[in-house]
Amino acid sequence: MTNYPRHLISIADITTEYWDLLYSRCRDIMSRPKDYSDAASDKIMASLFFEPSTRTQMSFQTAQLRLGGKLIGFSDPKMTSGAKGETLADTMRMFSAYADCIVMRNPYEGAALAASLYSDVPIINAGDGGHQHPTQTLTDLTTIAELRGEIGGLTVGICGDLKYGRTVHSLVSALINFPRINFVLISPPSLAMPEYITWLLDAKSVTWRTESSIEAVLPELDILYMTRIQRERMGDGASIVYPPEMILTAEKMTRAKSDLCVMHPLPRVTEIEPAVDADPRAVYFRQARYGMFIRMALLLEKQNLPRERSRYYEAATARHCPNPVCITRTNPYLPDRRSPGGFCEYCDTKI
Amino acid sequence: MTNYPRHLISIADITTEYWDLLYSRCRDIMSRPKDYSDAASDKIMASLFFEPSTRTQMSFQTAQLRLGGKLIGFSDPKMTSGAKGETLADTMRMFSAYADCIVMRNPYEGAALAASLYSDVPIINAGDGGHQHPTQTLTDLTTIAELRGEIGGLTVGICGDLKYGRTVHSLVSALINFPRINFVLISPPSLAMPEYITWLLDAKSVTWRTESSIEAVLPELDILYMTRIQRERMGDGASIVYPPEMILTAEKMTRAKSDLCVMHPLPRVTEIEPAVDADPRAVYFRQARYGMFIRMALLLEKQNLPRERSRYYEAATARHCPNPVCITRTNPYLPDRRSPGGFCEYCDTKI
Amino acid sequence: MTNYPRHLISIADITTEYWDLLYSRCRDIMSRPKDYSDAASDKIMASLFFEPSTRTQMSFQTAQLRLGGKLIGFSDPKMTSGAKGETLADTMRMFSAYADCIVMRNPYEGAALAASLYSDVPIINAGDGGHQHPTQTLTDLTTIAELRGEIGGLTVGICGDLKYGRTVHSLVSALINFPRINFVLISPPSLAMPEYITWLLDAKSVTWRTESSIEAVLPELDILYMTRIQRERMGDGASIVYPPEMILTAEKMTRAKSDLCVMHPLPRVTEIEPAVDADPRAVYFRQARYGMFIRMALLLEKQNLPRERSRYYEAATARHCPNPVCITRTNPYLPDRRSPGGFCEYCDTKI
Repeated sequence: MTNYPRHLISIADITTEYWDLLYSRCRDIMSRPKDYSDAASDKIMASLFFEPSTRTQMSFQTAQLRLGGKLIGFSDPKMTSGAKGETLADTMRMFSAYADCIVMRNPYEGAALAASLYSDVPIINAGDGGHQHPTQTLTDLTTIAELRGEIGGLTVGICGDLKYGRTVHSLVSALINFPRINFVLISPPSLAMPEYITWLLDAKSVTWRTESSIEAVLPELDILYMTRIQRERMGDGASIVYPPEMILTAEKMTRAKSDLCVMHPLPRVTEIEPAVDADPRAVYFRQARYGMFIRMALLLEKQNLPRERSRYYEAATARHCPNPVCITRTNPYLPDRRSPGGFCEYCDTKI
Repeated sequence: MTNYPRHLISIADITTEYWDLLYSRCRDIMSRPKDYSDAASDKIMASLFFEPSTRTQMSFQTAQLRLGGKLIGFSDPKMTSGAKGETLADTMRMFSAYADCIVMRNPYEGAALAASLYSDVPIINAGDGGHQHPTQTLTDLTTIAELRGEIGGLTVGICGDLKYGRTVHSLVSALINFPRINFVLISPPSLAMPEYITWLLDAKSVTWRTESSIEAVLPELDILYMTRIQRERMGDGASIVYPPEMILTAEKMTRAKSDLCVMHPLPRVTEIEPAVDADPRAVYFRQARYGMFIRMALLLEKQNLPRERSRYYEAATARHCPNPVCITRTNPYLPDRRSPGGFCEYCDTKI
Repeated sequence: MTNYPRHLISIADITTEYWDLLYSRCRDIMSRPKDYSDAASDKIMASLFFEPSTRTQMSFQTAQLRLGGKLIGFSDPKMTSGAKGETLADTMRMFSAYADCIVMRNPYEGAALAASLYSDVPIINAGDGGHQHPTQTLTDLTTIAELRGEIGGLTVGICGDLKYGRTVHSLVSALINFPRINFVLISPPSLAMPEYITWLLDAKSVTWRTESSIEAVLPELDILYMTRIQRERMGDGASIVYPPEMILTAEKMTRAKSDLCVMHPLPRVTEIEPAVDADPRAVYFRQARYGMFIRMALLLEKQNLPRERSRYYEAATARHCPNPVCITRTNPYLPDRRSPGGFCEYCDTKI
């Protein structure tokens, strides 16, 4: 059996083969869900949400319950030992004693990798600050595969905050592994896709271009992936008007392809006009169910892995990372991990 | 099969036939609970508590667990996407993807009706502000039926805050559908039963009268339904002494019928003296178990209904309702719904 | 069958015979856990955490889930009816209606005994203020028994805050029932073991002595039980340096026995240097799993006891206890309970 990465920390942990395995299991679950209703009946999933996220938390919890599995965890860290000063390492050791896998959302970047060093059970990253959110990308890939029949030969428009949007960075990183994808990046100039992503596109000879409005490109798109621009990021902070060229309206939709799929990770606020919801091409409310099924496949796979005694212990030297929200700031005992290029391996910031 | 209302929004959704169906199922469950321990094993109930209520929440959760069903949800809305600005409509769409029914408590009046427009699964109203709390009434009806053998031919005293007490409005609305019920309404003059209820009693030719103290009428009663008067509602706000004529004491109980049933929705604070608890006629601690069983019957029925794609989408025009706690205030996209008499259908306030 | 105490309020409720029964059941569960995966499938455990404690809560929840049992409860009392003024007595009556046993952590001393008066189902004390935490002691006994083969003939060092440490008071009270235990009490002079414990040691002719540093005694110890000294308790409050003689280091460990077991109830902060974690004699991370198994044995036993209608009602006279955190302060209706020696039975304070 091929060795897949034990933990799911970033989308890079999803190789093409691992995707094929998860997706085919996902399809089997969707075709006969009742046959999986006891598949994880002896497993306990710990969901540790150090910051709130109803959508992601409910998706994982429902997935586990529909496998017949059990749940422990918390969603309000003020109510935990962590609030008493317990380190992330000791928290992972505690939950390793109780659970068969740990699903964690944490506001600090690199928290999932840090957690994986001290856990005896697989860690699934449910979002670490603005860094990675790989199961959102698995949900997006599943949606595309289900609605288009395959992931390939598609013109994909990605719209909104492409500079800070972790979801879109992850989606693009994943889609470049599939054949004949053509990207159109739609954003205000100040929120353009960062260079490390466009560099990746060039390195893989993937065609891409930028546009400054949805209207300019909508008729060409097979997929339109909408994201929300947070208030604080709009221009110089003074203007609070959502840029109209970034809003999808029912009127603009009249010029879109008949088989366009409009996606959105949700929650959406202003960027998709409610009148679009009634359009059958709006698939964002269906993404939730695909997300639940792909998480069922993932949980089944991770919870069946054997326990492995963690071999890491706390190091004595403080780690130097300039990123103020890197996990090494609050957990200075973490081992020094740098990529050859001089990036902090936890949060991917240049040291 | 008769068509019953899909959602349980108000007590008006419980017709006499629906009550008969639920109550007979409830009795079957009480007689052989172990046979129901897997009746909902493949179902997930979402409990969305936008404001706290331990009693109601535990009752629903226990009911679902004793049916072998599963649970997701939240009880602290500060920890949810709603806190990030997600609309009630999108929240319902999200939970529709995960659950087979949604039980919701919300401080805004009309929230349950609003939720039902956007959910693909049945909504059960666990209390919407001061508006409706139908499962409390189902609990009360079950208690009366079990302890008196039938609901009919009873003199029912209702005591406390009858003006703002949603529970008593609902109970009276339900009881008038049963034969030969005679009401005695006991309250301070400033907290008398509102006209829209007494008008209903007259329209149905139900006998009723008012009294200003428990003592004056206690020997006549078959049922005494006690409720709490909240501090803020006592007189002009200055006085903080609970009106003694509204307090039930063991001494007064010496003059009550030997088969009187004293009920209270709980929690009780001052209005029933603790010495009454030892009296076998005090049945308020038993109501909790009846409430759990009738909720089991309700959940079984609702979770077996097929999913139905919601057909509502957000409207563009703001709704005008004078009630500051009407759900339309915080969710202005809700469709305009007015009764022929000019009442807001969400919160029953005259527009 | 011997009559064991119905509730688990303090470690005194664990007689030698009861310990033998629980521990042998625990060993059976550890040897074949899958055979117990449905042992409590029709039981509901209510966990009422009036103050946070992730470790204890997760341990109980996991134990119940691994028995196939169900869970209800809360861990944030701000979100409950208690916050609305509901008494502890009425809260227990409510949860008695729903659950088969109640696990409670409460900041008020004596809360568990108070709860047991009004509950129809067994109460398990998960910690009542600084008073008792019997399942922590059960965890500690299980750990010692498993790692040493038997509890007897051991030199046990107990280190840290021995004055306020409820965990160590309980552990010593339990260990004196086993043969040939020799205690070494290691603490700063201001945090020495209280007289009521050392009086107990003398009364039972148990050998003990005090030391002011770990180093002085480490080579003699079979067990070293470390505890954390809270910042507020260090000296006169000005100094915030943890006393070095109370810190366990890898260097000191070089002079310890090869089969020493280092224990800690966790979370640990400063008192055990992280470098000790890699030492196989450091067993504190394994304690969590033993704690889960002994709680499984306990929950199985308690949840199989028949329900018993509570016979207590609220008394009219206020109780006088000088302890400001005694449960009688917030629940003045509690019956007067004093030991012959004139101690408050709820919190063990001299009246």
